[in-house]
Amino acid sequence: MERITPRTLSGFMELLPGPQAQMDVILDVLRRTYALYGFTAIDTPAVEAAEILLAKGGGETEKQIYRFMKGEHDLALRFDLTVPLAKYVAMNYGQLAFPFRRYQIGKVYRGERSQRGRFREFYQADIDVIGDGTLDIANDAEMPAVICAVFRRLGIERFCIRMNNRKVLNGLFEHLGVQDPAAVMGAIDKLEKIGRAKVEALLAELGLGQDQIGTLMDLLLTDEPLAALEPLAEKNETLAAGLGELKAVTALLPSLGVPDGKWRIDLTIARGLDYYTGTVYETTLLDNPEVGSVCSGGRYDDLAGYYTNRKLPGVGLSIGVTRLFYILQEQKLLNDALPTAPCDGLILPMDGQCLAYASACATALRQQGVRTQVYMEGKKFRAKLEYANRLGVPFALIIGGDEMAAGTVGLKDLRAGTQQTVTADQAATIIKQSLDKDIKPVKGS
Amino acid sequence: MERITPRTLSGFMELLPGPQAQMDVILDVLRRTYALYGFTAIDTPAVEAAEILLAKGGGETEKQIYRFMKGEHDLALRFDLTVPLAKYVAMNYGQLAFPFRRYQIGKVYRGERSQRGRFREFYQADIDVIGDGTLDIANDAEMPAVICAVFRRLGIERFCIRMNNRKVLNGLFEHLGVQDPAAVMGAIDKLEKIGRAKVEALLAELGLGQDQIGTLMDLLLTDEPLAALEPLAEKNETLAAGLGELKAVTALLPSLGVPDGKWRIDLTIARGLDYYTGTVYETTLLDNPEVGSVCSGGRYDDLAGYYTNRKLPGVGLSIGVTRLFYILQEQKLLNDALPTAPCDGLILPMDGQCLAYASACATALRQQGVRTQVYMEGKKFRAKLEYANRLGVPFALIIGGDEMAAGTVGLKDLRAGTQQTVTADQAATIIKQSLDKDIKPVKGS
Repeated sequence: MERITPRTLSGFMELLPGPQAQMDVILDVLRRTYALYGFTAIDTPAVEAAEILLAKGGGETEKQIYRFMKGEHDLALRFDLTVPLAKYVAMNYGQLAFPFRRYQIGKVYRGERSQRGRFREFYQADIDVIGDGTLDIANDAEMPAVICAVFRRLGIERFCIRMNNRKVLNGLFEHLGVQDPAAVMGAIDKLEKIGRAKVEALLAELGLGQDQIGTLMDLLLTDEPLAALEPLAEKNETLAAGLGELKAVTALLPSLGVPDGKWRIDLTIARGLDYYTGTVYETTLLDNPEVGSVCSGGRYDDLAGYYTNRKLPGVGLSIGVTRLFYILQEQKLLNDALPTAPCDGLILPMDGQCLAYASACATALRQQGVRTQVYMEGKKFRAKLEYANRLGVPFALIIGGDEMAAGTVGLKDLRAGTQQTVTADQAATIIKQSLDKDIKPVKGS
Repeated sequence: MERITPRTLSGFMELLPGPQAQMDVILDVLRRTYALYGFTAIDTPAVEAAEILLAKGGGETEKQIYRFMKGEHDLALRFDLTVPLAKYVAMNYGQLAFPFRRYQIGKVYRGERSQRGRFREFYQADIDVIGDGTLDIANDAEMPAVICAVFRRLGIERFCIRMNNRKVLNGLFEHLGVQDPAAVMGAIDKLEKIGRAKVEALLAELGLGQDQIGTLMDLLLTDEPLAALEPLAEKNETLAAGLGELKAVTALLPSLGVPDGKWRIDLTIARGLDYYTGTVYETTLLDNPEVGSVCSGGRYDDLAGYYTNRKLPGVGLSIGVTRLFYILQEQKLLNDALPTAPCDGLILPMDGQCLAYASACATALRQQGVRTQVYMEGKKFRAKLEYANRLGVPFALIIGGDEMAAGTVGLKDLRAGTQQTVTADQAATIIKQSLDKDIKPVKGS
């Protein structure tokens, strides 16, 4: 037979079972935390009509999208979870209760140029709150609360949620008489990457005078942003509105369980020039600022304008889980103590005579909720133990003629190297007690 | 703005939040049950190189596959989870421990002609045990045990796992001197659909004499298949081997927790003519035989022959979850008692003054694991209660100035219509106690 060399496409993450188990714990933490905050799950197709996904059209999206014909249908793979959400809400408007709070965790596709740490298929984990006509600013305060809960439940403590408000920036530009606000915002967005001096040079190129640049920079980089903005709020309504929103959001953070050290106002954060209209968020890993924001989002005025004339404002955030996992793996931050074996108890029958008894023991363990495998192969005992070690199984249950006759098992704790003779039910209890449920997928720092 | 009518492609299931919550519980039961039996999760890309997916090539697959170019890459969407598994095992052979037991739950794509109850994107939920060179027949006994556990945990009791062995059929055909075993097998496979008389006519067309047909039919439809095959086993080695396997498998079922009423040997089951080589399984819903098998699988000799010269025999099964969900929904078998609200407690602040206290109460509830939402909008109280009812939330926590001053909440049980004044912590305890964790997604029958 002619053979084809098996391969997985470049830019498509495919993990071995151990790392996959770590990834699955991370996805599970996300699901549970989103649900804990009262978000409901939806699941939309990975394939949509191209005209739906490209309703907004334009630029990078169109270049990166996987688009193809099937028969007469012009189809494409979704490149984010926001456009499918807009479609979903517009389509099902009459059957949803607003505010509509949904989470979605799913794969999205972007045919980017392949490079290290960039993926063409990756998981996004999004939450959004969508209002019908209006949406109270208090909802914006919940986003940092969810981010904070997610990261701490993952085991990540050294992070900072940085918040800004687009109205503050817009008002500031109005006040300073900036001609091309979008370009200035783009320049400011580069502050972290290229530094103050280069941004000032860019701003000068954009026609800002030294006075304007000085005022702008002093404001953006102040340690007391709310106080510094206060006098300007009297001079510009947009800025005043933005400042009011920032204050409303930050005032609620303590009662929502977001500790002071986990967030700050950062007036240099701009994000998605044409989409966000109010609060914006970025989240930085304090020990890895070079990777940029690992969880971003913000407030928008109009979710689904391409599909409906109803005004549907919202606020949301997105975590690029595949990239986050890649970073955690690269930085060796994943917790080795997290159990990744396929089972907690591996039953090793000494020979074929013991198979039925071994199976009955497995049934007893499973009934108590212990993840159990029976090693069914007729190999030598050493090969069986090697298999257990290779899987990293914490407990082996050895069953020979003596155990079968006595109705017991030889319970071997493979980590401690100890062994005791107990019944299958006792073994289940011992195994369950030994499993630490509180191990987080990321190492404490 | 020119608007595009929002739509979802035909043949792509997209659920409203309530049914989605039911679907997610089903997927969760599958995940947990597979894990309980010692299967490890893998996650392969939905997109692969077309030559990898089509290594086997041929017929229906090639017609149905979604295949497209991206730049110079000839790509396709996976149409099952078996080919990706074969690729995965062949690629990662050196890093896996065998028997390799994996489960995978993911979406697959088939561009079939659109028809009611047929999906172009659907979830498959597969388990397989892969051996390195050999794989003990005892592994085949675990498949019915997993099916049985899955269905019972879903709440489905009225099902029957039907088992056969391809060697029994092959041996029988050899013994009877059948010329075209594949065609005869195809005819037998239709027994349930078209009935005995029409199958006998088909067999006659295939050149079988009335004696052959009579012997075959009597055997296939006997109530005591093992006993009926016994005398023939002496006359044909293949049949003897198959019979031996059937006996080995069925002998282990009691100790693996599969009750007698949940399975039977059915010699008419053929399945996947060119793939399975030993044990085969089908699972029928007793009250809905017309939908056919809802969980099928079997033993194969060679998982990955297109990618590697290593012999990798395996046994596995697959559930078409999207189709199963569709059937359960159509037949009104989904359990309405299953909670599908996005939260267990909805906090209703009377006005904006109470928002911070309401948020602190939400934080307290969430810390105790209660899924909680704060209604942040400045609507009238009636609108707030209507929202709670529309979501189907079991508890509302009403917070006005009095509650805030007293450090309490008005806990309203929306199902019972009762209300009591308690602290947030007490409310969390009451809510948790009231949530029945044992409600299954399918109604008992």
